[in-house]
Amino acid sequence: MRKIGIKEIEDIALGASLLGAGGGGDPYIGKLMAMGAVKECGPIDLIEPEEVPDDALVVPIAMMGAPTVLNEKGAGGSEYRALYDMTSDFFDKPIYAFMPMEAGGVNSMLPIAAAARMGLPMVDCDGMGRAFPEIQMVTFTIGGVQATPMALADEKGNSVIFRTITNKWAEDLSRAVTMRCGGNVAIAPYPMDGAVMKKYGVKGIVTRSETLGRAIRTAKDSKDTDPETAFLKASKGMKIFKGKISDVLRETRGAFNYGHVLLDGISDYRGQKAEVTFQNENLIVKVNDKILATAPDLICLVDTETFIPVPTDSVKYGKRVMVVGLPCFDMWRTEEGLKLVGPRYFGIDTDYIPVEERVKGSVQ
Amino acid sequence: MRKIGIKEIEDIALGASLLGAGGGGDPYIGKLMAMGAVKECGPIDLIEPEEVPDDALVVPIAMMGAPTVLNEKGAGGSEYRALYDMTSDFFDKPIYAFMPMEAGGVNSMLPIAAAARMGLPMVDCDGMGRAFPEIQMVTFTIGGVQATPMALADEKGNSVIFRTITNKWAEDLSRAVTMRCGGNVAIAPYPMDGAVMKKYGVKGIVTRSETLGRAIRTAKDSKDTDPETAFLKASKGMKIFKGKISDVLRETRGAFNYGHVLLDGISDYRGQKAEVTFQNENLIVKVNDKILATAPDLICLVDTETFIPVPTDSVKYGKRVMVVGLPCFDMWRTEEGLKLVGPRYFGIDTDYIPVEERVKGSVQ
Repeated sequence: MRKIGIKEIEDIALGASLLGAGGGGDPYIGKLMAMGAVKECGPIDLIEPEEVPDDALVVPIAMMGAPTVLNEKGAGGSEYRALYDMTSDFFDKPIYAFMPMEAGGVNSMLPIAAAARMGLPMVDCDGMGRAFPEIQMVTFTIGGVQATPMALADEKGNSVIFRTITNKWAEDLSRAVTMRCGGNVAIAPYPMDGAVMKKYGVKGIVTRSETLGRAIRTAKDSKDTDPETAFLKASKGMKIFKGKISDVLRETRGAFNYGHVLLDGISDYRGQKAEVTFQNENLIVKVNDKILATAPDLICLVDTETFIPVPTDSVKYGKRVMVVGLPCFDMWRTEEGLKLVGPRYFGIDTDYIPVEERVKGSVQ
Repeated sequence: MRKIGIKEIEDIALGASLLGAGGGGDPYIGKLMAMGAVKECGPIDLIEPEEVPDDALVVPIAMMGAPTVLNEKGAGGSEYRALYDMTSDFFDKPIYAFMPMEAGGVNSMLPIAAAARMGLPMVDCDGMGRAFPEIQMVTFTIGGVQATPMALADEKGNSVIFRTITNKWAEDLSRAVTMRCGGNVAIAPYPMDGAVMKKYGVKGIVTRSETLGRAIRTAKDSKDTDPETAFLKASKGMKIFKGKISDVLRETRGAFNYGHVLLDGISDYRGQKAEVTFQNENLIVKVNDKILATAPDLICLVDTETFIPVPTDSVKYGKRVMVVGLPCFDMWRTEEGLKLVGPRYFGIDTDYIPVEERVKGSVQ
């Protein structure tokens, strides 16, 4: 157990926005929510998965909806209480701890805000190890865990409890409500006991985010090497491309952000072209029409000077970015995992090949 | 208290489909559900509102969605149990009786099926005295009663409980889920105690449906007068037009049926034209471009020979129909009532004038 205060939030938000792989929402908004809550209610306790009793109730807290809409709507505070009460009443027992569902600018921060305001600890564990666009895309689904009973609350005071026959139905029904509520809501999916969390969760993800955040923040101060090399080394990222954004297509359809980013190569990549396609998160990157990474591996755009991650809703013409690949959590590379989040699920007609193999093959 | 069996269901379904004012779904489908349940589980007890204790829990049961979709999807049986359990668990007390929410081919029948299968009585009372397209359009809303907690169940096994800040939000969120579930679901809105039901409900509506049904069925046997006069006298209906359907426009948008029916006059109305516009239910009828009735009064199309009501999803080219107007329940004619279901709510730019005045004015 350790305390998470303002300084830790700063690094966690920065690192999680890299793990957001273009999605997960604007880290600035997320940070404001978490910091506001911690300033008001004090630092939270981050606990290890092993500290949670097997029969204790653990509940992920997340925001559902399209990040672009989130910026306009802001985020209320009464939702956490509503989610707590609905879930706790359902199981007729108190919630032992909150946890994140995914890593990303907003959804790594929301559980901190919720934990601070409700006086609960947060577990260092999530269900993705990155961000994904749909609710059923968690390691818990691979483990046969139900997304429901799932509570949903909007900032106006409306609330809903879902019980569905599959986790995809939980996604579909709550997405329909999310759209009707204005584009984003707070949810508490996958209420589970400690034993299940320990068996299927991505452990240590909050600490990993914090470490990545620190790596981004301190890359320029490296005494041994140039900042880019320092960043890539500390993040264990694979450099895929460097370029200037020459075109952005972005549209909101069915509560998702769809689009692509075109890049003209710079420095070592001069004369080459790259394309990154996204659905909330970056799904595939092609360099000179050759695929160099696909979901579920992480495709991240970072600023070439500051290494600060550039989410899909902040990409704009003229910006210089480096495309970095990160291997995904092992469970995603199984047959079950690829069925949930492999390239074909997202309509990309290619087999999954791990990013480290694709990148190695491209170096002539 | 009296028993409702096969014979009563036959008349209730027929009369309720007149009160459906073009909406409320196909009475044949509704009848099949109610009769199937009664054949299997025995007749149900129809109880007077006054027989319900003031503190007993009474719950309307209804199908939500577009009637055209209903025909294709059929209707399961496990939804009633799901609705019962969700509502009863929420209030931590048993449900004393079911009741209909509206009159209409399907929604006057569904509570009979539910009551038979769950072994509960049904109260002779509803919240509309006719059919309307949206959940908040009940007399209970005028009385300040909340539509939520509202349970929703589909035939696949998905279920949802809503708690909303207004009854219109209950409509909007459940409509979004209904569409995602395939176009129709079963719901249990406005759980209320006996005292509230007695204060704001439309009492005796089931018996009224049965009486109307008998009037339709026996009109041809009248010894005193011609069948049409007998039908109009027994139903207290006002004859507005008789014509042959010359055109039908129908489309499903946002889980509603929209459209209009054009009529060429026959017999006394030869050479005249009429237009009936609907959103699930008939909303307005114009004869020679003059408005002769609008919601919330009932505008009903019946077969000119059999007087069997013709719902909006059965109107077709060439059919001969009589347009009949029926005054709505008094509470709908108040300022509060007209705000909920007056012509302007449906986008019709005219003041409400009671059908009996409009029709009187049209007779030269």
